[in-house]
Amino acid sequence: MRLDEAATPALVLDRGKLKRNCERMLAKARSLGTRLRPHMKTLKSIDAARIAIDPGHGGIAVSTLKEAEYFAGHGVTDIQYAVCITPDKLPQTATIAARAAKFSAFLDSIEMAEAVAGFVRADNPAFGIWIEIDSGEHRTGLAPDDERLIQIAAILRSAGAPLAGVATHGGHSYSARTPEGIAAVAEQERLSVVTAVERLRAAGFEVPGVSAGSTPTSVHRASAEGLTELRAGVYMAGDLFQSGIASLAEAEIAVSVLASVIAHKSDQNQIVIDAGGLALSKDRSTAALADGDLGYGLVLDVEGEPSLGRLTVAGVSQEHGEIRGAAPLPFDRLPIGARVRILPNHVCMTAAIHDSYLVVDGGTEIVARWDKIVGW
Amino acid sequence: MRLDEAATPALVLDRGKLKRNCERMLAKARSLGTRLRPHMKTLKSIDAARIAIDPGHGGIAVSTLKEAEYFAGHGVTDIQYAVCITPDKLPQTATIAARAAKFSAFLDSIEMAEAVAGFVRADNPAFGIWIEIDSGEHRTGLAPDDERLIQIAAILRSAGAPLAGVATHGGHSYSARTPEGIAAVAEQERLSVVTAVERLRAAGFEVPGVSAGSTPTSVHRASAEGLTELRAGVYMAGDLFQSGIASLAEAEIAVSVLASVIAHKSDQNQIVIDAGGLALSKDRSTAALADGDLGYGLVLDVEGEPSLGRLTVAGVSQEHGEIRGAAPLPFDRLPIGARVRILPNHVCMTAAIHDSYLVVDGGTEIVARWDKIVGW
Repeated sequence: MRLDEAATPALVLDRGKLKRNCERMLAKARSLGTRLRPHMKTLKSIDAARIAIDPGHGGIAVSTLKEAEYFAGHGVTDIQYAVCITPDKLPQTATIAARAAKFSAFLDSIEMAEAVAGFVRADNPAFGIWIEIDSGEHRTGLAPDDERLIQIAAILRSAGAPLAGVATHGGHSYSARTPEGIAAVAEQERLSVVTAVERLRAAGFEVPGVSAGSTPTSVHRASAEGLTELRAGVYMAGDLFQSGIASLAEAEIAVSVLASVIAHKSDQNQIVIDAGGLALSKDRSTAALADGDLGYGLVLDVEGEPSLGRLTVAGVSQEHGEIRGAAPLPFDRLPIGARVRILPNHVCMTAAIHDSYLVVDGGTEIVARWDKIVGW
Repeated sequence: MRLDEAATPALVLDRGKLKRNCERMLAKARSLGTRLRPHMKTLKSIDAARIAIDPGHGGIAVSTLKEAEYFAGHGVTDIQYAVCITPDKLPQTATIAARAAKFSAFLDSIEMAEAVAGFVRADNPAFGIWIEIDSGEHRTGLAPDDERLIQIAAILRSAGAPLAGVATHGGHSYSARTPEGIAAVAEQERLSVVTAVERLRAAGFEVPGVSAGSTPTSVHRASAEGLTELRAGVYMAGDLFQSGIASLAEAEIAVSVLASVIAHKSDQNQIVIDAGGLALSKDRSTAALADGDLGYGLVLDVEGEPSLGRLTVAGVSQEHGEIRGAAPLPFDRLPIGARVRILPNHVCMTAAIHDSYLVVDGGTEIVARWDKIVGW
């Protein structure tokens, strides 16, 4: 089947681009003398994970316990839940750890360290704990010099709960706009966890893992000294925001949304498609970029080529997307029922609601259909 | 089980509020001498549909063919696909029409009328066609005086494809900010379809259905003269945008997102929860309201009461929501693992990715779990 014949809206993944994006990031990690832990929160698919996993590492990161269960069920044994865990989620870890021997999770508080210690003391299976460090994003995590760092490690040790390491996510790299600015955030990431590790080691703790990353910082990082792994996810697919901050080229974006033209409003120079706020997401992150507003995504032809000019989905409602442009739209090329592909602003948001990928390898022939998980 | 014990993030639906919202809209339709076709694109659940359906009408509207299949499978026979259909979607209508005798769909072009005529001539089962009228939203639909209106009706008649009626959606009511402004859009809706019907009847066509609606226009409409049905969906659940434009009171909003506190950033006066851009959606429609920015949603206590002050989710990443406020946050009341409920900006966007509702009837006791559909 070809994309012209597939039901819309649907998510398209170009396998060749995915492979090249994965190879490039793996080569980057190797060139810095470290390893890669791909974050599967973006693609949520075992087929994608098999391409992304670093053979020298074997592990992945996830953002939900549902992802952890899914990947554990497909044989991934090193799974890092890269979000602060809560007391009520602890019982679920036992099921996951039974399948994934190296399951681990984040925490950043004394309260939660005590909850984990209590859980392990009650003869539940232990799992690895990463103490989250705030390297400047200020979302979660302890400052590298926070005294609770040592207290948490001590609480865990007293209960025999293994310390997996320290971890940080320099999400503020998304606010940087130049490779130099992003490289500076990458160095903040590195120094924050290296500082935390030095303090822990000086206090007598073994710290096997030192994990840092985001897609922009991993791309632009100059040094990984002291890091045991880079952690990133968006790079596999890429999106308009990432191409806008030079994480990859627009032509390397591997995921798009296939849509059909459902109406012409020629008097308003508007073409309406069946991909709206749900199929594309309402993410507007590209509006903050300097290159001009890309609305809810950039319109490519069904081949995935930018032959239609720089058209954007300027407006969305739930199941409608409105393509508008300054120049007259190509109504003749896009009759009712014609297919287009939309590059997403933020692929993590766009991919999330879709339950599968139509896989192509260049062109429009569908070579596979990959399932992915949705929700919690 | 109580909400305090449920896995998070999750969607909560207050059944009592849902029932009252449905009763109020039904009473409004009756008071105007018309009937109600509830739009199930928001809640996507047969349990909700059973409460919402007007016993004097029996039909629903949907926004995807997947919804149509789902509701047809649950015994709803009058299903209006309220989006312009495309040629490639025609084969799927046969399966739906086999179960839902009164299945119908929108179109607004000569091209698509010809495609439907060809489909019916090829001995496929006919289904009802609503010609979509643009009452001022300028998304899809023909102007009431467009000459193609008569041409489309003629094309359909020539093939024996039944005309279900004319329909419009005054989605520009969302841009109005006062009951008077919204009532004016409601009257635009009404006049647009009444004008279209008069033209069709004058040209000798029978037009059984005259359908108009949106939640705001249905709430504030003064007259339904000439309309055979009102069509609306968001009113069942409500959201912060709808309460901001006086469609319902904030206390009547029936859907919220249950989340757990996962981290404290007391030095930044920030509490982080496990509901982020996916669980809440990235809809920012309330930013356009006069009452102040509600971020990604308003924070209620686990009972669904506004006892925490007017806290909002000020920032989101994929699985993190950041609660911030001007006054010191109630860290003691919200320890790690504590539950909160977030009122959504735009419930259609927020509910979409979740696959079920935790149903409560006031309070926190979960009285049912309703499945809903997700995606396409």
